[in-house]
Amino acid sequence: MKFRAAIDIMPLPALLDPQGKAVSTNLPNIGLSDISNVRIGKHVTLEVEADSPEAAESQVNEACTKLLVNEIMEGFTFRLEEVK
Amino acid sequence: MKFRAAIDIMPLPALLDPQGKAVSTNLPNIGLSDISNVRIGKHVTLEVEADSPEAAESQVNEACTKLLVNEIMEGFTFRLEEVK
Repeated sequence: MKFRAAIDIMPLPALLDPQGKAVSTNLPNIGLSDISNVRIGKHVTLEVEADSPEAAESQVNEACTKLLVNEIMEGFTFRLEEVK
Repeated sequence: MKFRAAIDIMPLPALLDPQGKAVSTNLPNIGLSDISNVRIGKHVTLEVEADSPEAAESQVNEACTKLLVNEIMEGFTFRLEEVK
């Protein structure tokens, strides 16, 4: 079975996010003063070949914790869906 | 009304994604050879103050096209939900 995963990797809430802060600060300059709390992270999509949704999930988890995510500074969530 | 938007900004499918390619190439080295087609983009969350979901949507669209997204190289999708 083939699965597609969509992973969101965001800076932890307790940490400053300078990139998001820069965007928040500059939005009023382009006329968008009602937007706040901008935070910027990474979005990763990938495909996994696995026997079950659980096996796919564990592979995605491993890819995140071993390679994609710095867990000291970032948290992650992901969605899995089967590709027909 | 306050809304929270989650925006996914990805390199267009027709374009190379060197960062994703580097990850794809290296996953087998950490024992994950069943993962393929890794693509890496940005995930942005923000809050919008607006009178209606439509107004919020138009503001998020404007923030994306004017500031967050380079539409020559990237495409974006977003989800909006009301914050109670």
